[in-house]
Amino acid sequence: MERIPILRMGDVLLVTIQVDMHDRIALQLQDDLTRMIEKTGARGVVIDISALEMVDSFIGRIIADTSAMSKVLDAETVLVGMRPAVAITLVELGIAMPGVKTALDVERGLAMLSAGRGADADE
Amino acid sequence: MERIPILRMGDVLLVTIQVDMHDRIALQLQDDLTRMIEKTGARGVVIDISALEMVDSFIGRIIADTSAMSKVLDAETVLVGMRPAVAITLVELGIAMPGVKTALDVERGLAMLSAGRGADADE
Repeated sequence: MERIPILRMGDVLLVTIQVDMHDRIALQLQDDLTRMIEKTGARGVVIDISALEMVDSFIGRIIADTSAMSKVLDAETVLVGMRPAVAITLVELGIAMPGVKTALDVERGLAMLSAGRGADADE
Repeated sequence: MERIPILRMGDVLLVTIQVDMHDRIALQLQDDLTRMIEKTGARGVVIDISALEMVDSFIGRIIADTSAMSKVLDAETVLVGMRPAVAITLVELGIAMPGVKTALDVERGLAMLSAGRGADADE
């Protein structure tokens, strides 16, 4: 069965989405990710979408939901690698991803997570 | 066009293979990866295959070739995330990946690369 791999890097989990999301694979990702957070005690999640040429409202909702699930397990999510065309589409279509932080690339996402953890009291 | 994303993390590039490799996507990966090594001056490449349920001689050769290409650009490659079933198949079918280092997961792969760079004189 097709599933999106979750890579552990220290206390951050990295999810690279390359395949077209559909219901089953999205549910599988949420299941895998929440289990992995529980198992590893990860404090951050980086979701990379640099391979996606298109983000529609379905994928937007999946990402927002996944981020909310991680949050209740005390792991902050950063969405990275968004293509310029995707950013344009998101705004033009009015697709909102409430509570999802974004960064340009994985490196900045990881930096944002470390900074966030260093300044927990501010949040 | 379908392509495999390459993520930069410091001076290491991370490639997560999730899709079925075929000729065109493999050539695209080699093209992208060598360009990215040139552009970023990366010293290491981690190829994650935890999403692959099957590695045949074609994929084995692609990985070995990609690793050799990185090597001539002075970047060390570590193959990580191999499933137990894949390891069994590789040995049973006698598929060799000459010159490819392996590690259990991304974290150990990254550790192997830092250790390797620390001990360059030994290699």
